[in-house]
Amino acid sequence: MEPQVSPKTQSFQPVGVIGGGQLAQMLALAARPLGIPLIVQAAAPTDPAVAVADGVVWGAVTDTQATAQLLQRCPVVTFENEFIPLPELRKLDPQGSRFRPRLSTLEPLLDKLHQRQFLAELGVPVPAFCPAETADLSGLGFPVVLKRRRQGYDGQGTRILPDRATLQQALAEYAGIPLLLEEWIPFERELAVIVARGLAGEIQLYPVVETVQIEQVCRYVLAPARIPPTVEAEIRDLAVKVMDKLDAVGVFAIELFWVPPPHPKAGIWINEISPRVHNSGHYTLEACHTSQFEQHLRAITGLPLGDPSLKCGGAVMVNLLGYEHSSSDYAQKRQRLAGIPNATLHWYHKTPARPGRKLGHVTVCLPHPPSPAEAADLVRTLEALWYPQPWIPPFLQPSKP
Amino acid sequence: MEPQVSPKTQSFQPVGVIGGGQLAQMLALAARPLGIPLIVQAAAPTDPAVAVADGVVWGAVTDTQATAQLLQRCPVVTFENEFIPLPELRKLDPQGSRFRPRLSTLEPLLDKLHQRQFLAELGVPVPAFCPAETADLSGLGFPVVLKRRRQGYDGQGTRILPDRATLQQALAEYAGIPLLLEEWIPFERELAVIVARGLAGEIQLYPVVETVQIEQVCRYVLAPARIPPTVEAEIRDLAVKVMDKLDAVGVFAIELFWVPPPHPKAGIWINEISPRVHNSGHYTLEACHTSQFEQHLRAITGLPLGDPSLKCGGAVMVNLLGYEHSSSDYAQKRQRLAGIPNATLHWYHKTPARPGRKLGHVTVCLPHPPSPAEAADLVRTLEALWYPQPWIPPFLQPSKP
Repeated sequence: MEPQVSPKTQSFQPVGVIGGGQLAQMLALAARPLGIPLIVQAAAPTDPAVAVADGVVWGAVTDTQATAQLLQRCPVVTFENEFIPLPELRKLDPQGSRFRPRLSTLEPLLDKLHQRQFLAELGVPVPAFCPAETADLSGLGFPVVLKRRRQGYDGQGTRILPDRATLQQALAEYAGIPLLLEEWIPFERELAVIVARGLAGEIQLYPVVETVQIEQVCRYVLAPARIPPTVEAEIRDLAVKVMDKLDAVGVFAIELFWVPPPHPKAGIWINEISPRVHNSGHYTLEACHTSQFEQHLRAITGLPLGDPSLKCGGAVMVNLLGYEHSSSDYAQKRQRLAGIPNATLHWYHKTPARPGRKLGHVTVCLPHPPSPAEAADLVRTLEALWYPQPWIPPFLQPSKP
Repeated sequence: MEPQVSPKTQSFQPVGVIGGGQLAQMLALAARPLGIPLIVQAAAPTDPAVAVADGVVWGAVTDTQATAQLLQRCPVVTFENEFIPLPELRKLDPQGSRFRPRLSTLEPLLDKLHQRQFLAELGVPVPAFCPAETADLSGLGFPVVLKRRRQGYDGQGTRILPDRATLQQALAEYAGIPLLLEEWIPFERELAVIVARGLAGEIQLYPVVETVQIEQVCRYVLAPARIPPTVEAEIRDLAVKVMDKLDAVGVFAIELFWVPPPHPKAGIWINEISPRVHNSGHYTLEACHTSQFEQHLRAITGLPLGDPSLKCGGAVMVNLLGYEHSSSDYAQKRQRLAGIPNATLHWYHKTPARPGRKLGHVTVCLPHPPSPAEAADLVRTLEALWYPQPWIPPFLQPSKP
């Protein structure tokens, strides 16, 4: 057994990450030049982060014994995702000083119902919601959103239901699983903001970005978002309020809906808070002075937070989603993607491919904020090289009669 | 023994790197997101690149048996430095298709005398030179530059000698070692340019930068250089001429002296060509669309070359040189350096520290080309956090009477 390291000695002591996926890989790649050793808790040698981490503790995210080992090697431990066994982790860290973000910060966020309740009590705008089992189905408006309260990601476990019949069918399918029913917000755009909070409560906000989802999976991100300065300011105020109330440490992502006036639902609505680095912040690797990954490491190790501002005019980030079941490494497609001027490829080394699985992403930096036409052009070019069928961005599709 | 891989299948096959230092580490960190496996030939487990490479062959740079193993695992092998046993490598690769750059490209560059002869024959401007043993010492002007023909780096093996007495003393000290004598160029600035050439002969040039050496070791780099467009164009023409003549593949660095008019020696002079990624190109990691490390991997694997242009207005790169013999990891100093806005720290994980040893670097991106005053300010701030004594940049020092 290795000796316990005092949690007071924070910087440049090893950081543990529960999880070995692409987010942990990008944290590891950021940790190396910063001089911070990084040890991952990973389930398999093929997990993306294993090859670039300084050490590995073998175990699934929910393997508390593995996390106990990780805590023996690392004074500070952080998370790649939210699917964590909170009560068991509490036993490992009774003083609550080892996990960052703190377990008390995570508690209201892990269950989507609790997260909504927390945000509603804080007085920030969220869609109307209720636990599915207490819903008065006769009084509902449609469409309505049905969500799994836990274990949902990339839209898995989220369904938008057009009428009472499909809702009742979905409720029957999900019988026995805790569910949340939510008002559907008729948004014009989906926005996101990455926000970092340090150990002393200092906060740095990245530019607000626009995210485009298809079937609840993020397809691409435009940075910065084309929104009025008042909306940007409102989002920044909301983000600070939420981070302060959570006493958050580290990088968090806040996803939002925007409904422009004069719609009766006009305004900003918080969709979801992820207490971790996030797909909507991948553009920061190339486009910002400090990437979200370096920023997270800075925040949790007590280093001063870095500058989150853009160092170029703007950026477009396109996800490379799996579209088939395959064990291919897509070498030819990656080669073609690498040929686009200004494009930076990030390949996650994940096999096998599955429909919807995030296999990589590409970021293009621009000298100015991306215009809709320019973004559409770039996304079309990139996606044509990746997907087998041409794909038309929603705002370029012929509108239905 | 593993099966031989066809050298025709280039991209995303493993790349081998002879060397395990910080340049190999930065190549490995660039290879990972690009999806290229990277295997290093390294002498010790503490070599910086070992922790982030996908595989290791143990052996010093000159260990030809280790290189033979590397060639078994990697269809393409590249170099971290020039201190290579060329005749032995020839035997490993009789067809000359496995090493990139090619051995025939490296041949005229490894010995500083041969390099000067090659450049002079090409008709590009170089200082007057001759092998020390054939020099007519009575006809020399002073100061004069004395260089070891091989194994010199970071100014080790280069001396600027003010008069005949010190020259004769130096020649006596170096007895038995092949030496080169060179005219000293009264430069106003030292410049450098990173240039990449692909397998099909395509060339991409990075902006010309200004490098500041102290005792022949690079102390900091300003990008882009403040030079007239005609000088920039002349340098670019020279670089293309040299790379084409060498039939180069990969990233090379060309270091130059600039003497502005009306001095009789006015013009551009090539100081040295390094057939590899180079300290003067570290700024490209944060400041350019494609870093020199990614560009080198692109060039040697046959991927299209990336965009070398600046994505911000400019950058200042400051080396963190060892100033003492120590096994410290300098955690406190690194923590202070990490606190500078816009600064990105690159720590090389090298121990022990020695005076002059490159332990890391810091890059600051700027919205505009760095002015001399701004650069001096930044360098002063960074160096004050690193070196125990305050250090004054040469152009701010009071001039000697």
